[in-house]
Amino acid sequence: MIVDHPGFVLWFTGLSGAGKTTIAKAMLPILQERGIRIERLDGDVVRESLTKDLGFTKKDRDTNIERVTFVAKLLSRNNVAVLATFMSPYEGTRNMVRDEVTNYIEVFVDAPVEVCEERDVKGIYAKFRAGEVKNLNGLDLPYEDPQQPDIHVETHKETVEESAAKVIQWLEEHQWIPAPVTS
Amino acid sequence: MIVDHPGFVLWFTGLSGAGKTTIAKAMLPILQERGIRIERLDGDVVRESLTKDLGFTKKDRDTNIERVTFVAKLLSRNNVAVLATFMSPYEGTRNMVRDEVTNYIEVFVDAPVEVCEERDVKGIYAKFRAGEVKNLNGLDLPYEDPQQPDIHVETHKETVEESAAKVIQWLEEHQWIPAPVTS
Repeated sequence: MIVDHPGFVLWFTGLSGAGKTTIAKAMLPILQERGIRIERLDGDVVRESLTKDLGFTKKDRDTNIERVTFVAKLLSRNNVAVLATFMSPYEGTRNMVRDEVTNYIEVFVDAPVEVCEERDVKGIYAKFRAGEVKNLNGLDLPYEDPQQPDIHVETHKETVEESAAKVIQWLEEHQWIPAPVTS
Repeated sequence: MIVDHPGFVLWFTGLSGAGKTTIAKAMLPILQERGIRIERLDGDVVRESLTKDLGFTKKDRDTNIERVTFVAKLLSRNNVAVLATFMSPYEGTRNMVRDEVTNYIEVFVDAPVEVCEERDVKGIYAKFRAGEVKNLNGLDLPYEDPQQPDIHVETHKETVEESAAKVIQWLEEHQWIPAPVTS
């Protein structure tokens, strides 16, 4: 069953290891069950096809976001919900996305960098400490905290399920998605 | 008004100057009026954002089609109709697209190369004759005619309106789009 709903872009921003992808993945089956047309856009998803020529330099990351934004624009204006999980550490970049897509909803996935480093899901902090990589936002590069995110989750204080539920609840309250059918 | 309809990809293939983009542009308002969620993907559209790093070599053209296919896949599986207009001269490329997207419908936009050259919408044939460009399908590179296109339009025998109407009629008959509302 597919329900009638507007398109929107849930834009998850936060440090590496903050939990962006984990929360989006937890939300996916919940939204699908409600009949939402949905796509998850993530570095791992798009690097297989859309951006496989790109590395991790500042310029390549910007190009990555540009292409993803184009796709998110086309999907969101055609009534598809997009869960986009990209560090996007700069306010300017996020504002560019906001201007391009239909119904941009900013989710600040927040955790202290020390917590993110301890999790180190991708091993990127260890590589940084070993001097193998540079330019890691939160350490030698800034991460600009969103000033007015629509939704703020704090993953050092909440479980994944709690953060996902908070986002879902916000979407319901703002009528982006229908409430669950109660029997 | 948006109606409920399946996603599909109308894939227009044909020589440069055969009329792919012209027919797609003529169809756009007709489909929009019927409430179809629709996106047009075209070299001119995507080169502004998705593929602005790409030129016109064989490799770049392949990469271009890869990225467009990714976008068409996401749109078509979310009930969006896609009008994609790319020369795509090789059967292998077209089969790759067919395998990736939801409901691939092949439109062979056919006209003899002599007619296309006479139109020379983009001035590309003149550049070829002047020795300024090489690798032009239909002249020094082959164009592999689709063997079993779903729809075959012959733009040297039909007006743009006739070709567009033929495609629309096919979509109606195969119930990809609703018939027009008669009052």
